[in-house]
Amino acid sequence: MKHFSTQDFAILDKQYRAKLINSLSGFKSANLVGTQDALGITNLSMVSSVFHIGADPALVGMIIRPDEVPRDTLANIKNNGFYTINHVGLGIFQQAHQASARYNAQESEFEKVGLTPEYHQGVSAPFVAESQLKFAVEMREIIPLSTNNTILVIGEICHLYCMPDAIKADGYIDIESLETVTVSGLDCYHITRRLTRLSYAKPDKELHCLTLDGEGS
Amino acid sequence: MKHFSTQDFAILDKQYRAKLINSLSGFKSANLVGTQDALGITNLSMVSSVFHIGADPALVGMIIRPDEVPRDTLANIKNNGFYTINHVGLGIFQQAHQASARYNAQESEFEKVGLTPEYHQGVSAPFVAESQLKFAVEMREIIPLSTNNTILVIGEICHLYCMPDAIKADGYIDIESLETVTVSGLDCYHITRRLTRLSYAKPDKELHCLTLDGEGS
Repeated sequence: MKHFSTQDFAILDKQYRAKLINSLSGFKSANLVGTQDALGITNLSMVSSVFHIGADPALVGMIIRPDEVPRDTLANIKNNGFYTINHVGLGIFQQAHQASARYNAQESEFEKVGLTPEYHQGVSAPFVAESQLKFAVEMREIIPLSTNNTILVIGEICHLYCMPDAIKADGYIDIESLETVTVSGLDCYHITRRLTRLSYAKPDKELHCLTLDGEGS
Repeated sequence: MKHFSTQDFAILDKQYRAKLINSLSGFKSANLVGTQDALGITNLSMVSSVFHIGADPALVGMIIRPDEVPRDTLANIKNNGFYTINHVGLGIFQQAHQASARYNAQESEFEKVGLTPEYHQGVSAPFVAESQLKFAVEMREIIPLSTNNTILVIGEICHLYCMPDAIKADGYIDIESLETVTVSGLDCYHITRRLTRLSYAKPDKELHCLTLDGEGS
């Protein structure tokens, strides 16, 4: 196997290192984060670091880089209190990637990349109309990570919208049927092929496959 | 579209809610975290929350639930200072899932699920021999998340081992070629099919596809 140490990382070309290290965590989620400022200017940001924190309360986290992502996203979240997270599907992954370009604060990425803002009652941030699974999030905690000057944003999911057929009998959402994509590294997009759902693991008990509806558990 | 509000979440059956909310962040990474206590007893934990934080220094984060995951993992990380993160490939995803069962602290998940501990110089934690991409991590920060009693563990990647053919000319690692799997919800495993790599997004410039080696940028 090829081996790299900390010393090897240090002398790599910056772009090479960024691509290498960004590949290590495994497959990433692909989401568009929708925000809005006090003047009503919308902002859309491609984020591949959204991750589950808890189900009750329903919490999600994401990492924001103040120096890389347009700062509009973080400023809007702090000022508005609400933001939306929208799954990136096969039909919009190129527009989603384009949303990571550094547009000016007065320009809306929605318009620039050709996606449609959509509003739902009680949420002062724009959803992506083209997304098949999306949710509104209320900001709960902003934690600066001292180790590298990034910011962890934690929020509580307050409104969820999802295509009904994808929600299975036991609550599992078949996001593969929504054609949600996944990201590897900085710039590679993938669709998925389901292997199986597996039963809850217990010591000294054999695993078995579940149906898509969770039957057989 | 089906709509759920916070009030709807609150009255859902606990298991239904866990499966629903765990599906929302999108596709997750699939990694085995290897640790070891002072007596040399190894521990292996399935973690679907490993995420990239930064490339320089090379930082990864993961969420640990003190009440759900065997506490051995967190205790070992704190005491030892080092842990390993190992990609879960198609060939070992069932063993990896079984490693999430609650074995006693005296039992090693390696032995119980049939995976092989492997050691590399300078790292006092076990790697998974069967994994095609794995790295050692030195603990940097432990941040309790007050909103729901989970813990964010941040570490610096200090040794990386990867099958050489998967590392492309520009540093991107083709983790699809390693058959790294991805997780949706709590229990569903998927392999991937690459759509394309995309060029770095800039305002007023058309995106184009890159080769797997990153050519065409």
